[in-house]
Amino acid sequence: MTSIDLNADLGEGFGRWRLTDDEQLLSVVTSANVACGFHAGDAATMRRVCELAAERGVRIGAQVSYRDLAGFGRRAMDVPPAELAAEVAYQIGALEVFARAAGTRVSYVKPHGALYNRVVHDEEQAAAVVEGVQLADPALPVLGLPGSRLLEYAVKAGLTSVAEAFADRGYTTEGTLVPRGQDGAVVTDPEVVVERSVGLARFGTVTSHSGAPVDVRARSLCLHGDTPGAVELALLVRRRLQESGVRVEAFA
Amino acid sequence: MTSIDLNADLGEGFGRWRLTDDEQLLSVVTSANVACGFHAGDAATMRRVCELAAERGVRIGAQVSYRDLAGFGRRAMDVPPAELAAEVAYQIGALEVFARAAGTRVSYVKPHGALYNRVVHDEEQAAAVVEGVQLADPALPVLGLPGSRLLEYAVKAGLTSVAEAFADRGYTTEGTLVPRGQDGAVVTDPEVVVERSVGLARFGTVTSHSGAPVDVRARSLCLHGDTPGAVELALLVRRRLQESGVRVEAFA
Amino acid sequence: MTSIDLNADLGEGFGRWRLTDDEQLLSVVTSANVACGFHAGDAATMRRVCELAAERGVRIGAQVSYRDLAGFGRRAMDVPPAELAAEVAYQIGALEVFARAAGTRVSYVKPHGALYNRVVHDEEQAAAVVEGVQLADPALPVLGLPGSRLLEYAVKAGLTSVAEAFADRGYTTEGTLVPRGQDGAVVTDPEVVVERSVGLARFGTVTSHSGAPVDVRARSLCLHGDTPGAVELALLVRRRLQESGVRVEAFA
Amino acid sequence: MTSIDLNADLGEGFGRWRLTDDEQLLSVVTSANVACGFHAGDAATMRRVCELAAERGVRIGAQVSYRDLAGFGRRAMDVPPAELAAEVAYQIGALEVFARAAGTRVSYVKPHGALYNRVVHDEEQAAAVVEGVQLADPALPVLGLPGSRLLEYAVKAGLTSVAEAFADRGYTTEGTLVPRGQDGAVVTDPEVVVERSVGLARFGTVTSHSGAPVDVRARSLCLHGDTPGAVELALLVRRRLQESGVRVEAFA
Repeated sequence: MTSIDLNADLGEGFGRWRLTDDEQLLSVVTSANVACGFHAGDAATMRRVCELAAERGVRIGAQVSYRDLAGFGRRAMDVPPAELAAEVAYQIGALEVFARAAGTRVSYVKPHGALYNRVVHDEEQAAAVVEGVQLADPALPVLGLPGSRLLEYAVKAGLTSVAEAFADRGYTTEGTLVPRGQDGAVVTDPEVVVERSVGLARFGTVTSHSGAPVDVRARSLCLHGDTPGAVELALLVRRRLQESGVRVEAFA
Repeated sequence: MTSIDLNADLGEGFGRWRLTDDEQLLSVVTSANVACGFHAGDAATMRRVCELAAERGVRIGAQVSYRDLAGFGRRAMDVPPAELAAEVAYQIGALEVFARAAGTRVSYVKPHGALYNRVVHDEEQAAAVVEGVQLADPALPVLGLPGSRLLEYAVKAGLTSVAEAFADRGYTTEGTLVPRGQDGAVVTDPEVVVERSVGLARFGTVTSHSGAPVDVRARSLCLHGDTPGAVELALLVRRRLQESGVRVEAFA
Repeated sequence: MTSIDLNADLGEGFGRWRLTDDEQLLSVVTSANVACGFHAGDAATMRRVCELAAERGVRIGAQVSYRDLAGFGRRAMDVPPAELAAEVAYQIGALEVFARAAGTRVSYVKPHGALYNRVVHDEEQAAAVVEGVQLADPALPVLGLPGSRLLEYAVKAGLTSVAEAFADRGYTTEGTLVPRGQDGAVVTDPEVVVERSVGLARFGTVTSHSGAPVDVRARSLCLHGDTPGAVELALLVRRRLQESGVRVEAFA
Repeated sequence: MTSIDLNADLGEGFGRWRLTDDEQLLSVVTSANVACGFHAGDAATMRRVCELAAERGVRIGAQVSYRDLAGFGRRAMDVPPAELAAEVAYQIGALEVFARAAGTRVSYVKPHGALYNRVVHDEEQAAAVVEGVQLADPALPVLGLPGSRLLEYAVKAGLTSVAEAFADRGYTTEGTLVPRGQDGAVVTDPEVVVERSVGLARFGTVTSHSGAPVDVRARSLCLHGDTPGAVELALLVRRRLQESGVRVEAFA
């Protein structure tokens, strides 16, 4: 029986501000990418999300980011590798405290926003993120885009890499994402998103931008939780995956 | 043979800015209070200081603070207890990553600046700091002022408390510190500081403001490292302690 | 004909996060307390709110705060007066740029959150806020609580003071606010809030906690915009004030 | 008689941390690039530096930066243009308050660090900086590298551009700076720096990397103040310029 992990970003408020509906998302996902304070996520929120995730058996991952609250981690930054590695480790360590206090552990690392996009191609920063993970705990898997420098370097360093796919993003015939801003970059029809989710989980394929199927092998699907209707769509994806015989569970 | 621990604040730079002479201080102290990013201390500095401390066998402590880089943690803040507890745990966790990566562990917690002063009397915040330490690791000792609510609550909660004394501060006949701003609050003559250090370590007494000796039982002496001549004075204190038969070593 | 000013906090998002419905509130109030970046409010939001306020003829005020994004300015801080004065001036200056670019000016100053509450009693900080306003522009009126040290010191310094009242807060028989946390601190029934607004505007009185009327002379009513239903209530207050013959307009 | 402006970065401390010797530098330069709080510079420091500058007749400029205290503004950031423009205006406005309070005005704008380097080539960000200056005050000159997109766009927008040169940097035969990291990027011999300063001021030429003279027309020389010996070198440059008949004065 096929299985797939569902991951989403959680705990992305800061102080007085809220963004993600953490309660709801925790009833959908199997892996929670918890913000660690650099783009979002204050300490009290991190604690609460870890407690809720532990209660519900949802795996906790460190969603590491550039240090940029004002930009929500969405602005690429030329951070020197030594600083970036240390910042990644810092965030993992901070989250680990709350995961342990909740009786569990941080079990993977996923870069956020601009850092996520940067380490698809940037070798120096990809290596720095890997170094940061190793500093914190070399047993931690790294979640990212298949074909990215990040996953490549993670594997080279002896880390476990976990590939993820996006049911609501367009794919090229090479299996890469259609860049945002281009036609077909984003899939908005909920029914199509659901179908693509099932196809990705069951067959490891998705219809590319050109109409031809393309292989996208992923052990996790990334769901979005910060837009109107997102939680409902995520719930629908989960149900339809299960109805089509896919086991929804955290990656091993 | 009598023994005493020497502690000082380290790693109190931030990004481009430096403050403490970490290299020098690590050749004096037996316990390093490492800034964790809330009042000072960026991730790369924390990493470097932990590596140096580990190399030299200096114990690493988490110097936890209010979140206040602009005020260097010196401005008391009415932080709600739940937030404060989580922030304390966050800082300890972040530092722990670098201590572990350097082959050691965070082995105690000491509040910084305005938080240090606040938890002498403030029951709510003292309890919150203790809760934060427990969240991170209930085996961690807490370093603070004898007679403070902090140490009292730490003991009640089953934590180890470690009392410290200040050879360069005036004491009242009750054994409390002469408040800053009052006559006799600070001892500036290096020779007197050295003598008081020896007296505190060997006999557990210090000459009070009124001239009478007063008992101040402390397992650690706090040295200051951020003023001109401070490192030289700290070195002198250490040498004279050793010459007078005191073993300078981290508290058990 | 009686007239009253309506003020509310605006622009209290930060980066990715939104809080206040600025568009809606600008159709209700005559004075907009715009966050200046210390507790909320990024530069792009400040610009946009100033442009909208100028379009609609709403007066722009600088909502100055402690430097505390993580706590939304709601945590009292022992900021030394010289720092506080400079921080107040800094915020006013930053907002002034956007007010001018929108063809208008910052026309008053109102402290936010914990600073607002602190300067009711704290003489040192009240004087520091006044000094900050004078640094920026001695012609700027200061909006605050009648009887507060802030307004008292503002008047002494030659500034214009503007008293405000809260239709949704309980008042003691002395005309001070019932402290939050006590019975009767907050009025939640919309109809009662509306009635109290009209009473405050027309007669300068409000029913105190004990049931007896008490004088509360205020040239401005503070409306809240960050809770569910708040905008609707604010609109209702405005309409009912107008229906009862009160002119809703910015203070002179 | 030839005249030249001398500019340097000032007020680059933050809270507890100091970096630049502002007192000393103000006795050397004719234009002070004052940090505005985004890469360095707290409100109290800005106030103090403006007061000192005004006393000594030194012109005040806004040294605007990316929002990056942790990186001292030295890490290039992909800030969207609308945000960047607003952030530039915010910083200028904040400084203007202190310049006015000191009886003078902000009289020019100079980007700092990574932003300075970015707007040499990046058209979008160069345009955004120009827009930010226009928002604040279209009468403000912009100080930057000759040939940069920044100065080009400033001129197109009707702003005054002021070109600066670096006596301690190597120049190519095209008159551009030898990139840092390459041979000859930095000139360290004080005597050579002094000679190059005089050559730049008197003849508008400097010896290029290849040994041939190259034209570099600049109305201002940038001096560095944050390295050991920098102030002494700056004083020497100033004296030798005056001895060789160059009038050291702020650009018109």
